[in-house]
Amino acid sequence: MRQLRLSFLMPPLAAMLLAGCAAQKPVPAPAVAPALRGTGDLGLIIERATGSVQVVEHSGDTALGRVEGLGDLSHAAAVFSRDGRYAYIFGRDGGMSKVDLLTRTIAKRVIQAGNSIGGAISTDGRIVAAQNYQPGGVKLFDADTLELLSEVSTRDEATGIASKVVGLADLPGNRFAFSLFEAGAIWVIDAADPRAPKVTKYPNIGKQPYDGLGSMNGRYYIAGLYGEDGLVLLDLWKPEQGVRRILNGYGRGAEPLPVYKMPHLRGWAVSDGRAFFPAIGHNAVLVADTQTWKEVTQVPVAGQPVFAMISPDGRRVWVNFAFPNNDTVQVIDVPTLSVVQTMKPCKGVLHFEFAPRGEEVWLSCRDENRVEVYDTQTLVRKTTLPADSPSGIFFTWRAARIGL
Amino acid sequence: MRQLRLSFLMPPLAAMLLAGCAAQKPVPAPAVAPALRGTGDLGLIIERATGSVQVVEHSGDTALGRVEGLGDLSHAAAVFSRDGRYAYIFGRDGGMSKVDLLTRTIAKRVIQAGNSIGGAISTDGRIVAAQNYQPGGVKLFDADTLELLSEVSTRDEATGIASKVVGLADLPGNRFAFSLFEAGAIWVIDAADPRAPKVTKYPNIGKQPYDGLGSMNGRYYIAGLYGEDGLVLLDLWKPEQGVRRILNGYGRGAEPLPVYKMPHLRGWAVSDGRAFFPAIGHNAVLVADTQTWKEVTQVPVAGQPVFAMISPDGRRVWVNFAFPNNDTVQVIDVPTLSVVQTMKPCKGVLHFEFAPRGEEVWLSCRDENRVEVYDTQTLVRKTTLPADSPSGIFFTWRAARIGL
Repeated sequence: MRQLRLSFLMPPLAAMLLAGCAAQKPVPAPAVAPALRGTGDLGLIIERATGSVQVVEHSGDTALGRVEGLGDLSHAAAVFSRDGRYAYIFGRDGGMSKVDLLTRTIAKRVIQAGNSIGGAISTDGRIVAAQNYQPGGVKLFDADTLELLSEVSTRDEATGIASKVVGLADLPGNRFAFSLFEAGAIWVIDAADPRAPKVTKYPNIGKQPYDGLGSMNGRYYIAGLYGEDGLVLLDLWKPEQGVRRILNGYGRGAEPLPVYKMPHLRGWAVSDGRAFFPAIGHNAVLVADTQTWKEVTQVPVAGQPVFAMISPDGRRVWVNFAFPNNDTVQVIDVPTLSVVQTMKPCKGVLHFEFAPRGEEVWLSCRDENRVEVYDTQTLVRKTTLPADSPSGIFFTWRAARIGL
Repeated sequence: MRQLRLSFLMPPLAAMLLAGCAAQKPVPAPAVAPALRGTGDLGLIIERATGSVQVVEHSGDTALGRVEGLGDLSHAAAVFSRDGRYAYIFGRDGGMSKVDLLTRTIAKRVIQAGNSIGGAISTDGRIVAAQNYQPGGVKLFDADTLELLSEVSTRDEATGIASKVVGLADLPGNRFAFSLFEAGAIWVIDAADPRAPKVTKYPNIGKQPYDGLGSMNGRYYIAGLYGEDGLVLLDLWKPEQGVRRILNGYGRGAEPLPVYKMPHLRGWAVSDGRAFFPAIGHNAVLVADTQTWKEVTQVPVAGQPVFAMISPDGRRVWVNFAFPNNDTVQVIDVPTLSVVQTMKPCKGVLHFEFAPRGEEVWLSCRDENRVEVYDTQTLVRKTTLPADSPSGIFFTWRAARIGL
């Protein structure tokens, strides 16, 4: 049995107690009349302890300002409007905020659930979907007004249990896929009519799916299982084949290590016919062949991986780790499937984000209150930005991608 | 021997004579004080006969205004600044214009050559490269000021011939690849120092490369040969292997048809382990396996393909055709490699562009002075925009991609 210390399933009490402990660093105040500018190089840094975000730009690698009052951001994620102007930020307390990156103000904010873990935006950008732990289910909102359009409940009539929703991903054609933690299922929503979404259910996929991802071309939805030793795959070009197990038994009977932090399946995972996944409870990154979905190899790494994300140039996979190795980042070379760099940039590396064409990467250093920007070619640090307990970093280029 | 009617190699005299024949359609005048807005959903339509562009947005599918005075746009292409605010437009007369999409004005304009065919922008967005027919070679410019930084001459010392440059593509790490038509070579520029670029030359690749493309992950550079029956591939992860021939003899000895318009290799070409290329002089789209680069099949199509581009969702390849079939568009289904739709949207379909996540496609109808917007899921027309002899359509999401 896995030893489970699932912070992701617990109420964010500790985070709430911690909120406000960090002193705010000075960043530019919001401009009265924002200058005309493009939004293609904008992004935001989640400041998890203070319920704020910094608006940043990656052409000059600077902070533009801070937006406060976003609630509990202890496990926050963001998606962007199709014009790149607005960020939709999903807070742990069920708050959903629409932030204007140009004026650096909150355009709209609603409390839509008791405990939320993230969201997605439809292909056409008109529907924002929120995935909820409490009370479970997925809610669909109008991206402009945040009006609630419909709700897909995950409550099981027989047991009364409403499954936590994990791994929500957008799919082509205004569809969304997600996984049900308790029910062990994958559901696909067709939101062609967002007020009356159609749900296709794939039950009995395995125990405790904990996260999922949509491939960059919208073909595959893959979920990781916490309660079993494997992952599951749905080929959306061949939905009649249903969900199948992949990389089954990757632990090969070895006793899993205690899990202090759940890995994430978000981000880029496929390059050059290879897919990369963090193993749970093992110090390894799993590599699968995307034609056969069989295991190619396991790359030994410095700890339990949290994110294993491919740079947009497809050449390297960057990996961060759970405690006690969260001071380490490793870089895997895709052609040789070997670690080519081990860095210790700072303590508490929670997340990282690439510039859209991959020339630089931003690393959040929660425990040292800063964000580090690295040149991905030279692996040399370019600059440092102060930030309060930074966690997720999200750039607007995600608006133009499938599965992010 | 191919029968060559290479409009792309001739001076744009006819186009110059035609310029001004089309009456300008009314579009909104430039705003005095442009409204604050995101740039992620912006784009432009080249109006080839009048030397103008329309600035458009694809959230609501509307025209925002027109910018005039851009010279000879009879074979024009555009790239975008990394913030999505500016377009760099390369005109046939060697003019390079930096257009501000927000104010809809010309920010800067230089005449940099006698005859130009397009350009590219470096990974970090700081260097704009122009590829020239006359006087040949590639010039590198500062993306901000348009200051000339350096020039890579393609003049052969022995013959005195300066090769026309075709198929310029950006590669990761501020590099560019291009092909030399007369010399039959591929060159790769490393512009880490853009005032002193380093050139790696791959000679003897075959006769008359006519266009080239960089793959979306920056790994492959592929050029099509006009003077021989095949394509050539450079694997930039294994440059020591040099350039190799792929799909050699795809014509299988059949007599090529007269070529009225050269196909283009720009745009998306790879999906799901398959690469798609227009055949020259044959009514076929070539399909290669991206692991072996061997031919998988040839998809018979309605004419000589010009563009064969994959939708961002990877599911379908859209194809337009040379005269006399330039009223036709076909859609190829990737899983089955068969034509699933044949449309005749209008006369003179010169180009098309997808929304970044592929839910709609814009088709330029030169001979009917309009642009048609289609829903890619239903294949139903959504709306029509008037435009003067529209040719290329370019959206700002290209700024965040490699190889476009």
